[in-house]
Amino acid sequence: MADYPVTPRNQVMRYPKRGVYDRDTVHRILDEALVCHVSFVLDGAPFLIPTLHARMDDEVLLHGLKGGRMLKHIEEGNPVAVAVTLLDGLVLARTVFNHSMNYRSVVLYGRGRLVEDPAEKLRGLERLSDQVCPGRWAEARPPTPKELQATSLVAIRIEEASAKIRQGRPGDADDELDWPVWAGVLPLNQVPGTPETDPRPHGDHAVPAYVSGWRRG
Amino acid sequence: MADYPVTPRNQVMRYPKRGVYDRDTVHRILDEALVCHVSFVLDGAPFLIPTLHARMDDEVLLHGLKGGRMLKHIEEGNPVAVAVTLLDGLVLARTVFNHSMNYRSVVLYGRGRLVEDPAEKLRGLERLSDQVCPGRWAEARPPTPKELQATSLVAIRIEEASAKIRQGRPGDADDELDWPVWAGVLPLNQVPGTPETDPRPHGDHAVPAYVSGWRRG
Repeated sequence: MADYPVTPRNQVMRYPKRGVYDRDTVHRILDEALVCHVSFVLDGAPFLIPTLHARMDDEVLLHGLKGGRMLKHIEEGNPVAVAVTLLDGLVLARTVFNHSMNYRSVVLYGRGRLVEDPAEKLRGLERLSDQVCPGRWAEARPPTPKELQATSLVAIRIEEASAKIRQGRPGDADDELDWPVWAGVLPLNQVPGTPETDPRPHGDHAVPAYVSGWRRG
Repeated sequence: MADYPVTPRNQVMRYPKRGVYDRDTVHRILDEALVCHVSFVLDGAPFLIPTLHARMDDEVLLHGLKGGRMLKHIEEGNPVAVAVTLLDGLVLARTVFNHSMNYRSVVLYGRGRLVEDPAEKLRGLERLSDQVCPGRWAEARPPTPKELQATSLVAIRIEEASAKIRQGRPGDADDELDWPVWAGVLPLNQVPGTPETDPRPHGDHAVPAYVSGWRRG
């Protein structure tokens, strides 16, 4: 797939060698993240909201209760920025200055539309479910017409995007290696704990394999 | 400590019962997070950048290489929004509609200033180091005058802030409990892996206890 164009807006300015513009990389990072942050402008001031996202082709899907401020703003076609950040480790260098983190992040810019077609809306909601827990959509009770009516789904076309990636050992220069301290990387992982069954009576249903075996990244 | 004022900007509109405005809660969530997202407005359009933050009293500190677009914009006193999100678990309900996540998030709004006083700047950089890895500042090589010169530190006064918290079991109503599927919460934790020592020669330094015992949350 073609790279996203590099523009004054999406160009990675700090540590430009960490900038990545190819669609596959951007899409993979978006697909791994469980939460995004959405930025938009109201009355000239910045607003910021965390929410769940999913990706379909070159669009990012967001959903929520109908009538919400953010979704209404996006439906109207206003510009929006979306970012996800995956934290992979702490980079502990010999010098304070060279400390860093290993991470993979994406920032994208685009404009959205309300998804109104019922079949497209249902597919989009299924994608959002799959983003969190593949396998769940087929087993949970499907949305009712009333629930669908109460839910808005928007699709944001990715107009500009860049990934920023830092991986690997500390960046201390060769003449900084002598400082007498351990240096290296402490990896960080998002790890599931033991599933906690809803204590309310509901029959005897085993924890599904897609829950007990849930992995991300 | 007094609550943050509830305003049209920081009021939690979706699921208002999840909104929390007390300073202690907001500060604790900020202090646990390893990454924040910063939103600001340039030429009327939203910009969004992930970065490290720390908190000192009622200010949020950000740092970076001098001359960066975001830091310069904040130095100039323009309005900025900062958000952090801690993901605590996947909430797998019986109905698709009731699926959710357990999380603790903060969104705050304020304006920044450049930290110019050398002693205050050094204290701020130490706070940023402690945010990631308490104990490291005392052992790593301190910043040189040249490195300090190349680094900008800004402090954003928290003018408005709210936390949003969801915890606990799925929200299925009593008449939705019969759907034949397991329901509950899959907890998620940020867990450190095995420290990876920088492969370059640097003497024989053991992994410090503040690294091997690193915990968050």
